[in-house]
Amino acid sequence: MTDVAAPRRGRPGNSLESLLDAAVAVFNERGYEAASMEDVAGRLGVTKSAIYHHVSGKGELLRLALDRALDALFAVTTEPGASTGRSIDRLEHVVRGSVRVLAAELPFVTLLLRVRGNTDVERDALERRRRFDRVVTDLVRGAEEEGDVRPDVGPALTSRLLFGTVNSLTEWYRPDGDLSPDALADAVVTTTFAGLRTDRRTFATESPERSTP
Amino acid sequence: MTDVAAPRRGRPGNSLESLLDAAVAVFNERGYEAASMEDVAGRLGVTKSAIYHHVSGKGELLRLALDRALDALFAVTTEPGASTGRSIDRLEHVVRGSVRVLAAELPFVTLLLRVRGNTDVERDALERRRRFDRVVTDLVRGAEEEGDVRPDVGPALTSRLLFGTVNSLTEWYRPDGDLSPDALADAVVTTTFAGLRTDRRTFATESPERSTP
Repeated sequence: MTDVAAPRRGRPGNSLESLLDAAVAVFNERGYEAASMEDVAGRLGVTKSAIYHHVSGKGELLRLALDRALDALFAVTTEPGASTGRSIDRLEHVVRGSVRVLAAELPFVTLLLRVRGNTDVERDALERRRRFDRVVTDLVRGAEEEGDVRPDVGPALTSRLLFGTVNSLTEWYRPDGDLSPDALADAVVTTTFAGLRTDRRTFATESPERSTP
Repeated sequence: MTDVAAPRRGRPGNSLESLLDAAVAVFNERGYEAASMEDVAGRLGVTKSAIYHHVSGKGELLRLALDRALDALFAVTTEPGASTGRSIDRLEHVVRGSVRVLAAELPFVTLLLRVRGNTDVERDALERRRRFDRVVTDLVRGAEEEGDVRPDVGPALTSRLLFGTVNSLTEWYRPDGDLSPDALADAVVTTTFAGLRTDRRTFATESPERSTP
């Protein structure tokens, strides 16, 4: 669906991009259902007809916005770090990449996570989210089979809890604050992979995420 | 605010309770802003004026619903398990209790987590959520000072990630499914406290959450 996300009618990309930024801001503030094309036009200081010049309506704005988040998340899963090596390392790569996407495309990912499936556009996005979740669950399962992930919780539940943590970042993370996306990704990987509880018998040994000063 | 949550006008509690259940279902489905009192009346099969007999309007329905979730969460923090003993154990008690509240009051907690502060009622709820978060952060800080929580992430970030995981359960958990609230709480505590990664050097030793078969 990457072609849909590109400016298709030969207009400068930044024009569609500003429109998308405004639409996503309005959708996130008012909720997609409650938001109107007037709200989006008002945010941009243009007329509604100027917007209909670019897109067919609110549904197309939603699709473009959701695909931007989803395309970025799927791109992470095809990077070499996500497709070669031990499953646990590929899983860590996907977690770090997802945190990076979340920080870079925060309003778009926020919108994606609020989608409930009320329209065809929303149902398509939910279907793509489910495919992403299956990629993560398969990595957790692989890591469990390789002995790197604890076997007592189960891959589906583990991946739900793991990406529950990642997705919850949209609730409070602000990329312009003190915490860089990389520091955030470190904290997420450390707490989810190694746990928040110290174990004084093991804390002194050199497991990779614990030996960092 | 417990007094507000009680049926105040001498009507049978189950009548206000049905009204609240319907209102919360409508608010969660359509979003609070987009939802109307007509929608709530329609869901109940009564007239709008029948509803105004119970409450002054949509804002009061929202306040009653949010207080139900918040009162239940604060009740957990004053239980003996949350106020005596080592901080790490008190923290675990609050996590388990919050999962239990989330499962028992799922639509109410879901609504609470979507509040963005657009009205006085929502801002009051956000302030109460922040107070709850401070209780959790203080427990994490105490556990860190007692050497039980890893010192390399920081109490505020650790508690945000921890309750990010808990709150994310509203996105997928259904109490009528195969996973009981207790099993869910076990999985949450295991993965967040001990981490998803096995450490074969330590997995054979007896840390409490790992020795369970």
